[in-house]
Amino acid sequence: MTEFELIARLTQSLPTNGSVRTGTGDDCAVLDLGIPGRLVLFKTDAVVEGIHFTAETPPEKIGRKALARCLSDIAAMAGTPTAALVTLALPAGFDAARIARIYDGLNELARQTGVAIVGGETTTNPGRLLLSIALLGTVGHDKPILRSGAKPGDAIFVTGELGGSLAGKHLDFEPRLAEARWLAEHFTIHAMMDLSDGLAGDLPHILTASGAGAEILKAALPISRAAKKRAAEKPPVVAALTDGEDFELLFTLSPKSAVKLLDAWKLQFPGVKLTCIGRITAGSGIVLRDRHGSMPLNAKGYVHFGGGADMLRTG
Amino acid sequence: MTEFELIARLTQSLPTNGSVRTGTGDDCAVLDLGIPGRLVLFKTDAVVEGIHFTAETPPEKIGRKALARCLSDIAAMAGTPTAALVTLALPAGFDAARIARIYDGLNELARQTGVAIVGGETTTNPGRLLLSIALLGTVGHDKPILRSGAKPGDAIFVTGELGGSLAGKHLDFEPRLAEARWLAEHFTIHAMMDLSDGLAGDLPHILTASGAGAEILKAALPISRAAKKRAAEKPPVVAALTDGEDFELLFTLSPKSAVKLLDAWKLQFPGVKLTCIGRITAGSGIVLRDRHGSMPLNAKGYVHFGGGADMLRTG
Repeated sequence: MTEFELIARLTQSLPTNGSVRTGTGDDCAVLDLGIPGRLVLFKTDAVVEGIHFTAETPPEKIGRKALARCLSDIAAMAGTPTAALVTLALPAGFDAARIARIYDGLNELARQTGVAIVGGETTTNPGRLLLSIALLGTVGHDKPILRSGAKPGDAIFVTGELGGSLAGKHLDFEPRLAEARWLAEHFTIHAMMDLSDGLAGDLPHILTASGAGAEILKAALPISRAAKKRAAEKPPVVAALTDGEDFELLFTLSPKSAVKLLDAWKLQFPGVKLTCIGRITAGSGIVLRDRHGSMPLNAKGYVHFGGGADMLRTG
Repeated sequence: MTEFELIARLTQSLPTNGSVRTGTGDDCAVLDLGIPGRLVLFKTDAVVEGIHFTAETPPEKIGRKALARCLSDIAAMAGTPTAALVTLALPAGFDAARIARIYDGLNELARQTGVAIVGGETTTNPGRLLLSIALLGTVGHDKPILRSGAKPGDAIFVTGELGGSLAGKHLDFEPRLAEARWLAEHFTIHAMMDLSDGLAGDLPHILTASGAGAEILKAALPISRAAKKRAAEKPPVVAALTDGEDFELLFTLSPKSAVKLLDAWKLQFPGVKLTCIGRITAGSGIVLRDRHGSMPLNAKGYVHFGGGADMLRTG
C-alpha cells in the first residue's frame, strides 16, 4: 500500500459534526464555529530533517519554511492567518542555539504576517528534528475558495514562476496571502490551491474535485530562472511541471475576466508575475499543447505516446 | 540547556495579536475569534513510538491515546472539543494495517466525544512512528478556567485516582470533559489543569501562575490500585505524587463550596472519585503534611530534610 492509497483508505469515513464545511481534500479544513460572517480555516504541516531541510540549512530558514508552508495553504483559501502552535520533536543532544534560531526565523515571519504564536510543545524524536505547525485562520463566509469550483472554459492562472525551487526558493518563498485575498475580493475565482507538488501533480486535484480536464500551453509556462539554469540536468519544462515546493497560487476564473484580471494585477502587484497557462476543459486529465499538437500528461510529467511513455521533450 | 530551560527561552517574546486571550503556559491557548459568547481553545500534542507507546501497544490504543491527551487539555479549560487534524509521521516500510487500526481507535474516541476529524497529513519520519494531534474546541466567554486563579485558603481537589497509570490507564483513560463542564457550570472553579506529569510536577504550575503555595495531606491522596499493587517497586504515595499520565483534573475552589461540591458530585458522577487533597496557602511551593509534621516537596517527589534530600517515606 502506498502512502496515497493509505490516505485514501483512512479518509473514507472520518467522524464529522455540524461545524464542518470542508474536511479533508482541500488546502485547509473549513469550519463554521459561529463567527458572524466568517469561517475558520485549520491546517497542519510538518517539516522533517533530511527531507524538507538538512543539517546545513540555516536554522532561521527552517523555522521560516515550516510556517510559510502553512501560510501558503491559508492563502490558497483566500484566508487571513491568526494563530499557530509549534510542535518541536527534538533528537537527543539537540543544539539549543540551533533551536532558538529556528524560532527566530519562525517568529519573524509570524510578525510579518500578523500570526500569534500561542504555544505548542516539545517532545523527543530520537532520530531527527521534526517541526510541525498547526495554524488557524479565518475567511469571509462567502469567500473560501475551494478546489472544486473549476468550470469548463475557465482560464487557468499561476502566480510567480515554476520549477527549480530546491535551488533556494523553497526556503525563502513569500506565501501569497495578500495576492489571494485581493483576488477573492475583486474577482470571482472558481477554484484555487497552492502548488506544493508541482503543477502536473497538483492541477489534477482541482480537476478531480471539479470533474473537469485541462489544456496547458507548454509555451506559456512561466519557467523560473533556477529551472532554466539547470537545463543540463532536467529539461526546464519538466522542472516547471514536476518540481515541488513552488508555493505559488494556481487558480481558475471565467475567461471573460482574464484580461481585466491581468491589467488590474499589474497595477496591484507589479513585482509578481501572473500567467494564463491554459484552460479548463470538459474532459478529464491534463493535455499539454505545443505547436506540434497535444499530448496527455500524467502527474509525473510523463507524456504518453500510444502504448509507451516518454519523458516530456522540451522542444 | 535542558528542555525546560529551552522552552522558557523560546516562549519569552512570542509574536502575538489581538485575538490572544491566553498564549503559552496553560493547558490550551485561548483565542477570541469573534464568536458571540464563546472563545476558541487550541491545543497540539504528540505521541512518539518508544516514549508514549511501544511496538507492542495495540494500535487502536495508540490512536485513542493521542486524541485523549488533547481532549484532556480541552477538559482542563472546561471546554467542548470540535475538530482535530492528525499528523502522522511514518517510518519507512510502515505497516498499513497498523496505521488503519491506529485511526480506528482515534476515530472511535472522536465519535464518542463529538470531534470531527477534518484532515491532517502524512509525512516521513525514518526512525519511528510519531502521531501529532491538533485540536480545536470552544468554551463560554466567561468560562475558560486558567491555572492562575487559585487563592489562599482554596480547597484542592483531584478527580479519580493517582499513580500507576503506565500499568494500563495511560491507554484507556477517559478525558474528564463532562466532569469539567459540569464543574464550570455549577461552581466557581478558581484554577484547573489536567495531571499529565504527576501531582508533584503539575501542581507547581498552578502555584507559580497563582503566586501561591499548597499544603497536601498525605493521607488524603487517592492512590490507585495499580500503584498499590506495585508497592514493592515504588512507595504508592511516591507513585501518586510523581507518576505521569494520570489525566485527571486538578482544581481549586473556595473552601465554603467544598462540602456542597462533594455532595453534588456524588449524585452527578457516582462512578468517579473526587477527593479534597489539601489547600492553597499564602506561601510558595508544596508542603506535604502527615501525622508526623510537614515537609517541603519538590517536583520529583523528594522531600527535603534540612540540607539533604530523601525519597518520600510512605509511612
